Amino acid sequence: MNAPLTLDRIRVVLTRPSHPGNIGAAARAMKTMGLHDLWLVAPTSFPDPVAVARASGAADVLDHAQVTPTLSQALAGTVFAAALTARRRDLALPRAAPREAAAELLAWREKGDVALVFGNEASGLTNDELALCARPVTIPTSPDYSSLNLGAAVQLMCYELRLAALGETAPFAAEPLPDPATHEEIEGFFAHLEAGIVASGFLDPAKPRRLMPRLRRLFGRARLEKEEVAILRGIVASFITPTNK
Amino acid sequence: MNAPLTLDRIRVVLTRPSHPGNIGAAARAMKTMGLHDLWLVAPTSFPDPVAVARASGAADVLDHAQVTPTLSQALAGTVFAAALTARRRDLALPRAAPREAAAELLAWREKGDVALVFGNEASGLTNDELALCARPVTIPTSPDYSSLNLGAAVQLMCYELRLAALGETAPFAAEPLPDPATHEEIEGFFAHLEAGIVASGFLDPAKPRRLMPRLRRLFGRARLEKEEVAILRGIVASFITPTNK
Repeated sequence: MNAPLTLDRIRVVLTRPSHPGNIGAAARAMKTMGLHDLWLVAPTSFPDPVAVARASGAADVLDHAQVTPTLSQALAGTVFAAALTARRRDLALPRAAPREAAAELLAWREKGDVALVFGNEASGLTNDELALCARPVTIPTSPDYSSLNLGAAVQLMCYELRLAALGETAPFAAEPLPDPATHEEIEGFFAHLEAGIVASGFLDPAKPRRLMPRLRRLFGRARLEKEEVAILRGIVASFITPTNK
Repeated sequence: MNAPLTLDRIRVVLTRPSHPGNIGAAARAMKTMGLHDLWLVAPTSFPDPVAVARASGAADVLDHAQVTPTLSQALAGTVFAAALTARRRDLALPRAAPREAAAELLAWREKGDVALVFGNEASGLTNDELALCARPVTIPTSPDYSSLNLGAAVQLMCYELRLAALGETAPFAAEPLPDPATHEEIEGFFAHLEAGIVASGFLDPAKPRRLMPRLRRLFGRARLEKEEVAILRGIVASFITPTNK
């Protein structure tokens, strides 16, 4: 139903990742959101079976990953790079939130390859590395504990990219609408219910309070379907004339 | 700069999690976004050192986690539950995207505890478990590969909750919210109704068809209020024991 989304030409660059498990988690996170272009700058261990295990069904992303010795080489040919940074740096460019950065990345992608750059798990990006990127991005975390896992950060950013690419379209295919009850069917049910609760003594016609309006409001919120009216009338009928006495 | 955000009274419920690593990842994901209230339904292994290792600095979230044998018990006292589901189900309520669900959860939290429910890594939630929740939520994933890691799904949802709490007030927050029935009150009504329609002969326990799931879906859409539950139970009681015979 949705047209196939093209989230190609967006590189996810992990800079000096220490833990192969995080590389695998990043690959999985990317693929779930439709991204495939993984670049690794001087990884501590790659390839690595731990990465493959954590990648689950995204081992193909690992297979096609590009490995470079420097961030500069991983950015070769790109027209725009956004870099994740947990903290404000001196002399830094204005920071973007993830959603803004996703929109910027998609906009620049019209002009060429773009990159989303993540730093080392413990130390982040160096100032020199950050200087290679046009836009610092900070994920809003709790001031009490901001230690986002690398794979989780990749997941959040790729999710925002997917949402940005989906744009105004509904996030999932339109669901079939149920078969709604007609006005007459609904009124038939209310008449039946009212007669039933008068017969049972719950509703005193001399002192109706606001019982029927309240029931109308309740069932009105649910927007009854045809089959549901049939079920409800069946229930009322069974109470009035029990069948298993 | 930002006023301290209160993301308390939001339970993150992991239902039958198989892998302790995912429990730890979920705890870490929660804490980075300012959530602390973790509930575990019948975990395969907990406590577990693997969970503590993956939790990193969020071991305190694990220490305070509540463990229950059933999802129903983990929802005790809540007024609204949203449940993650990867696929459309028969008889399902309208699905929300993560952002919509986050706004709904925050809005209902004004009335009491709310819950965000995740299923087992491989099998998700059962239909019975999903039926206990008012809102199914689907994270938009790639149609080619939708296998989101459990910890990653928790991360995305907690991120959306944090953004919602930081951001503009929910579109429908301005409308006065009714006084919602609690999980126990709603379950009490369903038990009463079921006993009633078994007694009346409408529901044959030997051949239940899909009657109770259909009724749950209907009343789930309406999101019952406290007083409405009282009215409905009064009606069922009056049918079982008529007062004006």
